[in-house]
Amino acid sequence: MMNIELEKAQSIISQYIKPILASEEIPLLECSGRILSDTLYAPICQPPFDRSPLDGYAIKAEDTKGASIETPVELQVIHEVCAGNYYEGDLHNGQAIRIMTGAPMPKGANTVIRQEDTNEGNETVLVYKQLKPYMNYCYKGEDVQQGDILIEKNTLLTSAHIGLLASMGYTHINVKLQPKIGLLSTGDELIEPGQSLTQGKIYNSNLYTIATALKELNCQPIIIGSTGDDVELTSRLIKENIDKVDVFITTGGVSVGKKDILHDVIKKIEAKRLFWRVKLKPGTPILSSIYKDKLLLSLSGNPSAALITFHLFLPNILSKLTEYEGYENNICEGVLQNDFNKKSITRRFVRAYYEEGKVYIGAKHSSGVLSSMIGCNCLIDIEAECEGYSEGNTVKVVRLY
Amino acid sequence: MMNIELEKAQSIISQYIKPILASEEIPLLECSGRILSDTLYAPICQPPFDRSPLDGYAIKAEDTKGASIETPVELQVIHEVCAGNYYEGDLHNGQAIRIMTGAPMPKGANTVIRQEDTNEGNETVLVYKQLKPYMNYCYKGEDVQQGDILIEKNTLLTSAHIGLLASMGYTHINVKLQPKIGLLSTGDELIEPGQSLTQGKIYNSNLYTIATALKELNCQPIIIGSTGDDVELTSRLIKENIDKVDVFITTGGVSVGKKDILHDVIKKIEAKRLFWRVKLKPGTPILSSIYKDKLLLSLSGNPSAALITFHLFLPNILSKLTEYEGYENNICEGVLQNDFNKKSITRRFVRAYYEEGKVYIGAKHSSGVLSSMIGCNCLIDIEAECEGYSEGNTVKVVRLY
Repeated sequence: MMNIELEKAQSIISQYIKPILASEEIPLLECSGRILSDTLYAPICQPPFDRSPLDGYAIKAEDTKGASIETPVELQVIHEVCAGNYYEGDLHNGQAIRIMTGAPMPKGANTVIRQEDTNEGNETVLVYKQLKPYMNYCYKGEDVQQGDILIEKNTLLTSAHIGLLASMGYTHINVKLQPKIGLLSTGDELIEPGQSLTQGKIYNSNLYTIATALKELNCQPIIIGSTGDDVELTSRLIKENIDKVDVFITTGGVSVGKKDILHDVIKKIEAKRLFWRVKLKPGTPILSSIYKDKLLLSLSGNPSAALITFHLFLPNILSKLTEYEGYENNICEGVLQNDFNKKSITRRFVRAYYEEGKVYIGAKHSSGVLSSMIGCNCLIDIEAECEGYSEGNTVKVVRLY
Repeated sequence: MMNIELEKAQSIISQYIKPILASEEIPLLECSGRILSDTLYAPICQPPFDRSPLDGYAIKAEDTKGASIETPVELQVIHEVCAGNYYEGDLHNGQAIRIMTGAPMPKGANTVIRQEDTNEGNETVLVYKQLKPYMNYCYKGEDVQQGDILIEKNTLLTSAHIGLLASMGYTHINVKLQPKIGLLSTGDELIEPGQSLTQGKIYNSNLYTIATALKELNCQPIIIGSTGDDVELTSRLIKENIDKVDVFITTGGVSVGKKDILHDVIKKIEAKRLFWRVKLKPGTPILSSIYKDKLLLSLSGNPSAALITFHLFLPNILSKLTEYEGYENNICEGVLQNDFNKKSITRRFVRAYYEEGKVYIGAKHSSGVLSSMIGCNCLIDIEAECEGYSEGNTVKVVRLY
């Protein structure tokens, strides 16, 4: 297929991506950003016992009837219980047990009077306030009941999940293997950063941008290298490394020029071409093929075009790989805060900044402009044949991660 | 000071935090999430030379006057130049040079006719379209001029910055040392995850939650351990480790109960108390002190209270430590989508979800509820003496990272 719509291209790719089934058990402290492989259930109640929510005296509420500062009730203090220990006996009418925040409620007690509402006595205590049963009382399992679903599988784990799992006694968790994405750049014009720039050459930035963007998406980039315009070398490196990755991304060599070698490469390795050229700018000549059941996604070598098409395609690919739906492209509308006068025959994606329903376009739109990606958090989706937009127009945006 | 406002507490702490001055040079691929120590300038222009934005023929625009499909202009093809190499000679009238995307413009050429607008000839080429000078022409330095500021110091680096720096030839970058935050939990009620739970005990989750939240904020958590209610041990571990960290956080032992040992600990180590108790819930009894010129921030041991006060205090602390302003608490307004009927005498922060100006409150508000932190991305700031809110009310929110 050739010259297809973005959504068609995304949907074709989706059909060929298989979810990652393999998982690994890793320490809880390393789980942030990883995807949970199996639904986890609560092995215990949280809290594990009825407990006091404050520092005071565990009592029977009925003993406080009519209590006030003027008419305090006197109770006998029979014990003291701190968080971490407990009282084995029963509390009877007329008795109080000194209790600290988090300590288990003694049997027979149905409320806690805070120490500020008493004379803080040791042998006996004067209670200055009337309480209802189960006021100031924290129930066993009021947060989580044993057997409850704690976290559904395919959830992206954050510090809040990790705290919850620690509170349940977990130390290690099964998470899916991180998506491994092979990266290879082509183009004789590329010089690696650190070397000196010679005439007609530019520094290879695509490997760096995409590798780092992949890390930010909790993937594992596997940098294979840079192969110039060498069909043999490019083919060999794809062949040798395809088994180590879930998806293989290349940059450069996909247009119609003489040195656009990816067309020859996919013939040589006998990959199955899915499509070439998508109706969007920048990055039109994106080439997608399947090699040994893996997706080979070949992006334009132009740095901005590579990055924009990366942002348009990778989220849905990662969503399929990980089964975490939160990766999917987040599409919404926003109100443009600038004029945008550039006419476009082709559908075009323009870098912008989205905040609170407002969309701000930066100054530079050349597809060669890497610096304009800085500070961007969305792409405006400008439809084909658009004559431009004015401030106040509602535009469609794709939010970036 | 005691019983102070949150903003007062934040401002007191700010006065005592010194920016991290030390930096380290690390590989560009590891810079995502780190803070740049020095402003970086462009060592070269980007692009480094005038170049072709497409595949076609470099020509003089004046030679295309009147050209159309019916009346093509024929030019002599004198050379071919691909991206990565260059043509040394000059282009004259009546001549064309086959040129590929990214290749340097030959001297004398002022435009590129795309190959689709020609017969793609080899010896001579028929041009079907009239062009203006400098159409289809990419200028040296049109993205970045040599000497321009590339990235200001104190910027948090993302993949877009890293791509830009790679395109400028950088391989290693000076970034500030990550903030090192010591973590210690107190409380005899705590059992470490993985051990079996005995009567009256709960699992220690605070170290896990806070350590992971710190990692998500690009800090380096240094877990010192869990010290029960042992004043000696707690004091010794703070003393022994204070020099290794920028800020020391403890949890537990800050309330008014008998086992609230942090008050004794700070006396024993002769730390200077800044304040105790902040007018907010949950987490009122936050205790802040200075020990050996470092901030010792002692949070409530209640897991939700610890996490909420962590989120209220850490961003401003990190902003001071790193000089990156993006860390500062992001406060805005939103429209409540649920009723909130809980009356509150004290100012209260309630976990919620913010999206597009709308604020959604979850179901659970007990301060013991760790699971309610999941999926939250903001705290609603409910003022003291509030009688509750109704759907549609505008509320103040603190957005979380």
